[in-house]
Amino acid sequence: MATANGAAVDTVTTGPIEGSVKHYKEVDDLRIPVRRINLTNGDTFDVYDTSGPYTDDNATIDLEAGLPKLRDTWVKPQVDGPPTQLAWARQGIITPEMRFIAAREGVEPELVRDEVAAGRAVIPANHKHPELEPTIIGKKFLVKINANIGNSAVSSSIAEEVEKMVWATRWGADTIMDLSTGKNIHETREWIMRNSPVPVGTVPIYQALEKVNGDPTQLTWEIYRDTVIEQCEQGVDYMTVHAGVLLRYIPLTAKRVTGIVSRGGSIMAAWCLAHHQESFLYTHFEELCEILAKYDVTFSLGDGLRPGSIADANDEAQFAELRTLGELTKIAKSHGVQVMIEGPGHVPMHKIVENVRLEEELCEEAPFYTLGPLATDIAPAYDHITSAIGAAIIAQAGTAMLCYVTPKEHLGLPNRDDVKVGVITYKIAAHAADLAKGHPHAQQRDDELSKARFEFRWRDQFALSLDPDTAREYHDETLPAEPAKTAHFCSMCGPKFCSMRISADVREYAEKNNLTDVEAIEAGMAEKSAEFAGAGKKVYLPVVS
Amino acid sequence: MATANGAAVDTVTTGPIEGSVKHYKEVDDLRIPVRRINLTNGDTFDVYDTSGPYTDDNATIDLEAGLPKLRDTWVKPQVDGPPTQLAWARQGIITPEMRFIAAREGVEPELVRDEVAAGRAVIPANHKHPELEPTIIGKKFLVKINANIGNSAVSSSIAEEVEKMVWATRWGADTIMDLSTGKNIHETREWIMRNSPVPVGTVPIYQALEKVNGDPTQLTWEIYRDTVIEQCEQGVDYMTVHAGVLLRYIPLTAKRVTGIVSRGGSIMAAWCLAHHQESFLYTHFEELCEILAKYDVTFSLGDGLRPGSIADANDEAQFAELRTLGELTKIAKSHGVQVMIEGPGHVPMHKIVENVRLEEELCEEAPFYTLGPLATDIAPAYDHITSAIGAAIIAQAGTAMLCYVTPKEHLGLPNRDDVKVGVITYKIAAHAADLAKGHPHAQQRDDELSKARFEFRWRDQFALSLDPDTAREYHDETLPAEPAKTAHFCSMCGPKFCSMRISADVREYAEKNNLTDVEAIEAGMAEKSAEFAGAGKKVYLPVVS
Repeated sequence: MATANGAAVDTVTTGPIEGSVKHYKEVDDLRIPVRRINLTNGDTFDVYDTSGPYTDDNATIDLEAGLPKLRDTWVKPQVDGPPTQLAWARQGIITPEMRFIAAREGVEPELVRDEVAAGRAVIPANHKHPELEPTIIGKKFLVKINANIGNSAVSSSIAEEVEKMVWATRWGADTIMDLSTGKNIHETREWIMRNSPVPVGTVPIYQALEKVNGDPTQLTWEIYRDTVIEQCEQGVDYMTVHAGVLLRYIPLTAKRVTGIVSRGGSIMAAWCLAHHQESFLYTHFEELCEILAKYDVTFSLGDGLRPGSIADANDEAQFAELRTLGELTKIAKSHGVQVMIEGPGHVPMHKIVENVRLEEELCEEAPFYTLGPLATDIAPAYDHITSAIGAAIIAQAGTAMLCYVTPKEHLGLPNRDDVKVGVITYKIAAHAADLAKGHPHAQQRDDELSKARFEFRWRDQFALSLDPDTAREYHDETLPAEPAKTAHFCSMCGPKFCSMRISADVREYAEKNNLTDVEAIEAGMAEKSAEFAGAGKKVYLPVVS
Repeated sequence: MATANGAAVDTVTTGPIEGSVKHYKEVDDLRIPVRRINLTNGDTFDVYDTSGPYTDDNATIDLEAGLPKLRDTWVKPQVDGPPTQLAWARQGIITPEMRFIAAREGVEPELVRDEVAAGRAVIPANHKHPELEPTIIGKKFLVKINANIGNSAVSSSIAEEVEKMVWATRWGADTIMDLSTGKNIHETREWIMRNSPVPVGTVPIYQALEKVNGDPTQLTWEIYRDTVIEQCEQGVDYMTVHAGVLLRYIPLTAKRVTGIVSRGGSIMAAWCLAHHQESFLYTHFEELCEILAKYDVTFSLGDGLRPGSIADANDEAQFAELRTLGELTKIAKSHGVQVMIEGPGHVPMHKIVENVRLEEELCEEAPFYTLGPLATDIAPAYDHITSAIGAAIIAQAGTAMLCYVTPKEHLGLPNRDDVKVGVITYKIAAHAADLAKGHPHAQQRDDELSKARFEFRWRDQFALSLDPDTAREYHDETLPAEPAKTAHFCSMCGPKFCSMRISADVREYAEKNNLTDVEAIEAGMAEKSAEFAGAGKKVYLPVVS
């Protein structure tokens, strides 16, 4: 199998993640995928699974044929109005997508419908992307993460991009965005769409710009519109549209430290200034709504004027655009189109919460979808970390989806390893926020893993972690011997001197002697001391020499 | 040169960090070290420097001789009372250490004295560690970070540990803790002390335990006391003492998911239960104060009952111990001994701020020194990141020093690469907090770096970053050619399609045409459009093919 340019697309990663198997929970007529972790104590633990059939040992993967068209058999409501999840939800209809999501999230279908109807959650699911396993983006649900992939004029092939999609979803990406530029945009996207189990987002202006040979001043509404329709037909589930970059906001960026850093934003700014006209994305917005409604493509209203540095955070340009996105949100929803709002960028910690507050106020609580934000500018090569700090905080405050940042941000295009590090880092930020928001199920995984850790069930600790392969590898670097996997100590303290081991002995001793409350201790049990002193000497279990 | 066991100690890393030189600012009789970054536009930018003479091309490094004894010529106040920075500060005396710190931090010496006198800041500086370049730990100053090093029974040599100290301070560790266990504890520490430009902390109970062959029940006050004196004599600057693990608190841990995870805490718990007596660290605390006062060793009151999992965060055991640390703080200060308080551990985001609030209330705002905390348990191999999230948040809330966590936490002993990743990650968390707290100088570095980024001064972007080597390496992976270092684009978008480039053009155009405010734009300048449309075509600067 090969693409038009001869590159082979046959090397995607398959098979389950170590310590787990693909499992499907049967809910009515639906099969809900989960990653089932088999623990060494005989228990199982199921976790949310974004990886599609690729981790199913029983699935046949044929990239040319694409994934099974799961949603083709799902019945679409036959009612008046735009054929969108938003319109249906408003009419009180619970769709198969909503039921699928409810089972996935462990919530009631009515909650899903209600949040979608209110515009506080979106289900990006183009009718022309039947391969999709639906997911929901909204603050009452698990925080989601997006991974950007896409080739550029400088780097990478179609094959690499398809594998990046499979790879990113393997590790937990809830959606992916194809940000390809350069050649073969349409073909790359077709391969990705037909093989993606998660919603796919794009920024149509990138492809439109290719059609005018990279000169933003030559863009027209017609070229853009045709590009949007082309992408809707392919099945793109959500589209970033920088319709809030208005002519009068552009001068507000002139005094910034880093001007306009959004690609889409700078393209539209260049167009507006060159023509001295209002953005065609803004003036034709209602036509755009009509197109997106037909396919149920979700708007991701782009923040073309997002701050690109700490100095520019929360400035007039950024918030002026946000107000316009609020207006556009109302217009889109009046057409039945689902909307989410993109957010920054680079923001110091003390200015993060204000972004969420204002977005919710101006945009009717439409799901917020932020890039990080990076909490400092001074660590290129570590911007997955600078941004994970901001991402965790902004998600705790109510952001529904986090766009990942890889270690290569600002420096280069991410390779496969960078994609994985970016995804895992953002799973951490999202999960930390789920815990902080008190998501009903989130802490179960922490508790299971910590129990395994305390009981020295190393294999279970690996299997329950976000990245079992790396956890095992790091463990084996210091203590490679196989018996160490069951050793009652770890390499930090060595066998004689293990706090977990001592602590377990303390617990055992306390329970055995009924020293489980303060009174019992204070009553004095000196006669037990000698016994423990003896037991204490058994702390050292020489499993490994 | 070799250690007693024959291991060579001659491979420490020397020379300046790329793009910078060691520079000394002369302030009265003091020479304040800074890392001076030489920018390609002719400017210089100085940053706080913890690396000691190792990054000075003019320094001769002789590990056997140790570093120059900088503080030997500094005059000690000859007044009544304990010879400590706390006692002197209370008497209104500004010591050379305080002046050194004031110049380093860019603040007034009186602020340093005042914060030390109030016990809100500490200067860990044993009289027997004259090689030290003094640093301050307190919430009104830059957030500091600590790197743990130390061999264990399982792994690593003296030579490796000395290099880890040099390596950790090269990348920004403000203090290091030598947590060696196993053999050669005394000798390893001697090498580290004589060559460390930063304060060194220890946990004396670890060495005391070695003296009783690892059986915690055989520990005595006398063995412990003699170990403390031995370490004071060597020059250790601060010591972790788990004197708050009281007998009656131990049962409070029995129902925890992860019991007692602190090594020191579990050792003392085992001792207390075995003897059914109150901890000798608690009953002999005043004697300990008298010893530490003599050398001006700072207490780091250990949190032996810190939570080891999300489930155990902020529980009764943890906060009971914290109340006792509050009592001990008052006692230590009454002896003139400086005190900081250690904190958790594993804490979900929404429970972090309460830790700082309670610590400040109970411990008279003594500097808080926390390990992370980890914001989730589910990512072993990425716990530098899970904990950087918690560390940034807790530092924003007022924590003065952050103990780093490396990717190997819970899995193995950190190697040299892990130490660097841990240090850089924690510099990010500390700096993010400095920004959020509005530290007067913190944002200058972000602004300089962002300006360099916007102006495509790649070399300056690298030099201003926390890790120039890795930033350059990542850049070169995608665009290795030397001309790309000066290219007006980067690899993310390619040459034709660069938002930074377009944005710079927009700014230039707007300024040239006086389009710098909303009115000018709205006045309409259609005649300028054609001109820009022409300029827009020059966006592509084919520096690299």
